[in-house]
Amino acid sequence: MRIGILTGGGDCPGLNAVIRAVVRKSVTQHGDEVVGFRDGWRGVLEADTVPMDLAAVRGILPRGGTVLGTSRTNPYALEGGADRVIANLERLGIDALIPIGGEDTLGVATKLAEAGLTVVGVPKTIDNDLDATDYTFGFDTALGVATEAIDRLHTTGDSHHRTLVVEVMGRHAGWIALHAGMAGGATVVLIPEQPFDVDAVVAHCQHRFDSGYSPIVVVSEGAVAKDGGMVLAAGEKDAFGHVRLGGIGTALASLIEQRTGREARAVVLGHIQRGGTPSPFDRVLATRFGLAAVDAVHDGESGVMVALRGTDIVRVPLTAATARLKLVPVERYAEVEVFFG
Amino acid sequence: MRIGILTGGGDCPGLNAVIRAVVRKSVTQHGDEVVGFRDGWRGVLEADTVPMDLAAVRGILPRGGTVLGTSRTNPYALEGGADRVIANLERLGIDALIPIGGEDTLGVATKLAEAGLTVVGVPKTIDNDLDATDYTFGFDTALGVATEAIDRLHTTGDSHHRTLVVEVMGRHAGWIALHAGMAGGATVVLIPEQPFDVDAVVAHCQHRFDSGYSPIVVVSEGAVAKDGGMVLAAGEKDAFGHVRLGGIGTALASLIEQRTGREARAVVLGHIQRGGTPSPFDRVLATRFGLAAVDAVHDGESGVMVALRGTDIVRVPLTAATARLKLVPVERYAEVEVFFG
Amino acid sequence: MRIGILTGGGDCPGLNAVIRAVVRKSVTQHGDEVVGFRDGWRGVLEADTVPMDLAAVRGILPRGGTVLGTSRTNPYALEGGADRVIANLERLGIDALIPIGGEDTLGVATKLAEAGLTVVGVPKTIDNDLDATDYTFGFDTALGVATEAIDRLHTTGDSHHRTLVVEVMGRHAGWIALHAGMAGGATVVLIPEQPFDVDAVVAHCQHRFDSGYSPIVVVSEGAVAKDGGMVLAAGEKDAFGHVRLGGIGTALASLIEQRTGREARAVVLGHIQRGGTPSPFDRVLATRFGLAAVDAVHDGESGVMVALRGTDIVRVPLTAATARLKLVPVERYAEVEVFFG
Amino acid sequence: MRIGILTGGGDCPGLNAVIRAVVRKSVTQHGDEVVGFRDGWRGVLEADTVPMDLAAVRGILPRGGTVLGTSRTNPYALEGGADRVIANLERLGIDALIPIGGEDTLGVATKLAEAGLTVVGVPKTIDNDLDATDYTFGFDTALGVATEAIDRLHTTGDSHHRTLVVEVMGRHAGWIALHAGMAGGATVVLIPEQPFDVDAVVAHCQHRFDSGYSPIVVVSEGAVAKDGGMVLAAGEKDAFGHVRLGGIGTALASLIEQRTGREARAVVLGHIQRGGTPSPFDRVLATRFGLAAVDAVHDGESGVMVALRGTDIVRVPLTAATARLKLVPVERYAEVEVFFG
Repeated sequence: MRIGILTGGGDCPGLNAVIRAVVRKSVTQHGDEVVGFRDGWRGVLEADTVPMDLAAVRGILPRGGTVLGTSRTNPYALEGGADRVIANLERLGIDALIPIGGEDTLGVATKLAEAGLTVVGVPKTIDNDLDATDYTFGFDTALGVATEAIDRLHTTGDSHHRTLVVEVMGRHAGWIALHAGMAGGATVVLIPEQPFDVDAVVAHCQHRFDSGYSPIVVVSEGAVAKDGGMVLAAGEKDAFGHVRLGGIGTALASLIEQRTGREARAVVLGHIQRGGTPSPFDRVLATRFGLAAVDAVHDGESGVMVALRGTDIVRVPLTAATARLKLVPVERYAEVEVFFG
Repeated sequence: MRIGILTGGGDCPGLNAVIRAVVRKSVTQHGDEVVGFRDGWRGVLEADTVPMDLAAVRGILPRGGTVLGTSRTNPYALEGGADRVIANLERLGIDALIPIGGEDTLGVATKLAEAGLTVVGVPKTIDNDLDATDYTFGFDTALGVATEAIDRLHTTGDSHHRTLVVEVMGRHAGWIALHAGMAGGATVVLIPEQPFDVDAVVAHCQHRFDSGYSPIVVVSEGAVAKDGGMVLAAGEKDAFGHVRLGGIGTALASLIEQRTGREARAVVLGHIQRGGTPSPFDRVLATRFGLAAVDAVHDGESGVMVALRGTDIVRVPLTAATARLKLVPVERYAEVEVFFG
Repeated sequence: MRIGILTGGGDCPGLNAVIRAVVRKSVTQHGDEVVGFRDGWRGVLEADTVPMDLAAVRGILPRGGTVLGTSRTNPYALEGGADRVIANLERLGIDALIPIGGEDTLGVATKLAEAGLTVVGVPKTIDNDLDATDYTFGFDTALGVATEAIDRLHTTGDSHHRTLVVEVMGRHAGWIALHAGMAGGATVVLIPEQPFDVDAVVAHCQHRFDSGYSPIVVVSEGAVAKDGGMVLAAGEKDAFGHVRLGGIGTALASLIEQRTGREARAVVLGHIQRGGTPSPFDRVLATRFGLAAVDAVHDGESGVMVALRGTDIVRVPLTAATARLKLVPVERYAEVEVFFG
Repeated sequence: MRIGILTGGGDCPGLNAVIRAVVRKSVTQHGDEVVGFRDGWRGVLEADTVPMDLAAVRGILPRGGTVLGTSRTNPYALEGGADRVIANLERLGIDALIPIGGEDTLGVATKLAEAGLTVVGVPKTIDNDLDATDYTFGFDTALGVATEAIDRLHTTGDSHHRTLVVEVMGRHAGWIALHAGMAGGATVVLIPEQPFDVDAVVAHCQHRFDSGYSPIVVVSEGAVAKDGGMVLAAGEKDAFGHVRLGGIGTALASLIEQRTGREARAVVLGHIQRGGTPSPFDRVLATRFGLAAVDAVHDGESGVMVALRGTDIVRVPLTAATARLKLVPVERYAEVEVFFG
């Protein structure tokens, strides 16, 4: 077979592990040929390919990012884009396509499968907000970066008797904040799913100060206050007449400082959460996803993606990738609330 | 309620996270009192206790080991031991006991539950060889140490054109070797469940040298050769007349050196795999286990232990802890075999 | 003897290692008594003390921050402050004082020594900008955090073909940027000592893109453009009419994005650079500083501080601490310029 | 110019950083051509070369090992070896040679310089036992691995009330043990320069147990007991009639267990100390060594090597590399003794 492979959307630790596993398995066990498309769907649109043989994947397992490059190009958003994609895949003799990506990338994949192409997807979302799988690779690595940062901030907070607010990824789902906050021993964890009460946040911080330690507040970038007042766009003036200079983390720090009367500082982790070498958990998960995708292709499957259920890799419909977000349920948030204050 | 807690058997990163979660939840949400027993069942036998209030668990989340200490003392192996345990628990007014440990510790727990005591166990096995739960805490941390070691050894091996054999934990089950070998890009992975063929191992190493790189062999301490020849006790003479100076790792390195004609070295990771700060994954899992154990106690359960199924914490009979080992199945080993050579 | 100890100014990994070394050496080798003052000079002003015996320093070596707390309180800035400090030290029977801190803390120490008190200082500046010593503890740890971040960002930048700007500490001196930029393989390094030319920065980024990789720009928080245009206060409008939303890192990213026509993102490392466990280098340096300070006290020295010269710990006048900043010399900057573009 | 480069002896984190710096500086600033020899002097003997252009060194900075490979081949130990080396260098048009290595590699370099060739050496010894330079790259990385291991072992030791013996590199000089022991808070540190008294070691361990904690003994592989009894070859019978199964670490653990009556375990760190990504300190030092070597070559120097003095890179005679070992002086050992027990 001639198998096409591409990575789309935001980068994520583990992408190279998937690519390597796909190539190793298909080449050594099936004698397949693997064609890499550069920069996601852009590479298919422009027939920009790179041969992926065993040499091409040597040494990439521990490396972050994706050797294939990535982009947010969506062929269905371009006039004639879908036709060009289908024509190019045919012209290049691609028997099956393994796209690795999130909602957008797999949305395109779904349509191509519906159009009759053989497509087996590999899900990727560093936020872990995909309902169809227990975990996605990249999440554990991001969690590691965030937890290490929180570990570091505890001692600096305590030494200065100041609040530290750590803003982590999570626009719609608070999984990174939830797990990093639990793993790092946060005083408060704020997530998009649970609009927060400013008074309660301040009370938890105050309680922590009263017990002789300093608060760490972990907040998802998408968290909002109950009254909505905290979600000013950067550049607007906040309730205190200050120009808003950043995201929710910075806004919260400024507010907590005013309300507790003690210094507060924000740390916005940003891109370091998604770069760098994947954790062992992510390397294993990504590798198993890649192997299972090749199995699915050779089993004649299409329109499916691989997913983790317990310790098993299973196949679910590609449509599941875009069905709905996996949000943090109330009972999981209740777990971390035990440690507030 | 008055809840007793203890940790038994080998130490494991995450034990303190369990203890902290039990104390935080039971004290702050239920107004319970928690009594710690020192050094596992020894502490119960000798009524050696320490009060576990909120102050006692502050700051212990990221710390390895167990603040309660541990031992391998088994009251049922001592004359009158069980009676003394039961008498002490009654005398101390313990309403429920939460023992954290492996097969031995939970074996005692099972008997005590059968004797009518309220007991909710928390499973612990760094080898991840417990059938009743998807994962146990400590395993991911051990995996992290082993994978980092393998990452480090790749470059030193390649620079010297020599084989490096890494011996990891796993007396009966090869989970650490399997996952670390997959995460670290090992040339060969040898586990107790799959007696290995020496010729095949040497061939994989040779193939790796032929492709311009150097082999990394990851081997569980309990792995054995098909002909049984590799399991000499240390101190005995091996087939080559040399006194056996270590475990399987050292023996393999010596054998591979002779058969490939190139230097080979063994690294035995040993105790660094079980010490140190738990990974975020383990901190979260251990914390959730602790919370769930308190829930179970307050739900009036006994004779159960908490376990991970997918992303849920469930309750299973305590007898499941000692029922049978979770071994690496053939299909999981087949996954890593894709990367051999 | 009765020795007082305090930590002032910003916290810094290694402070606890100094404290532990002072206590261990003075207590076990000289039979001294050590009195800790809480939160720097504030503790002396308010006679807020804590006895520092062997138990008080157990386990603190690997911990970031300072168990004594810190503040920026300056007794000489308060009416009658100096008198109160001197009176309290006398009343508490302090024979010698070991203050650990930067320019401000040691400035107070200098005046107290001039006033006749026995004072031996330990220098602390995470920015490494103290002329009297080769290195100060904390710098190597900050360098480790910054370098790890750069390592992580390389792959995410390359995958997305975008520029990443990393803002690191260094208001007046660019040591962290210089060393982290060199250690992380930065495309450009910008430091306060060398006002930068925007066109040259853009050209280096462009050159990096042309060679198929993505640029990493490492910038000290205190770096400025040659024309001064980059140092707008946050909240002001920049040359492009945008409200300035952060420091130099954010401003540079926005400018590079506009000039290269490719996405650019900023990461501001902030407080994670100064928190957390000290690196081995810093633990050793801080420990040796603490030991040497006790030696100096027992040698009857005063008005001096300890310093590193090559591999030796030496004594220099306390006035050296405030004499002048150690800036990055042109020839050191020229070293890293070799790797630009 | 046409510059030859090679790496000899044991591998060491930072070798690639030197190679990259040599290539970047000589190619971009001088328009030189750089020729790599594979596997140390073997590559020169066999004229086994690889062109080292900018592309060849891209991405190698953070990688351990050496992309050139290494060996212990000594041309002066082979009949006609030296002549072949000189003839090959001439035939290949090598104007100057930059060998990177330890005593043996630079010993050859010294002889070639004396024979009239232009040779500028870069010193390498992971043990840091070279008298002519304050530090060598690789040492700080090894120290990091050893210290992290000790950090991990503290909690496992305390949980089990057992002694842990950590054997680190250092055949003739105890620098790694000294620094790692100081950084890790060891109970005892044993180095080759100070033959140890078994009774004192046991007393320190006992004292540590008495204070409620467990001892960590850090021992250089080359450490010896005062009576010489501890240096049995592996395989021989020790004083207790047991076959000696390993190095000094294993022997000590067995002895301490017998003498204290409490379990003791040994961990032999071995090769993980010299593999993997170099620490920032080592990357900077190695890079500066590479740059300075190119400067020396272009300044017309020969028979010299680069070295670190304080914060400066200086040039010293190549003969200094082989002059004498830098041993741990008594006063440095006295520093760590403050923390014994």
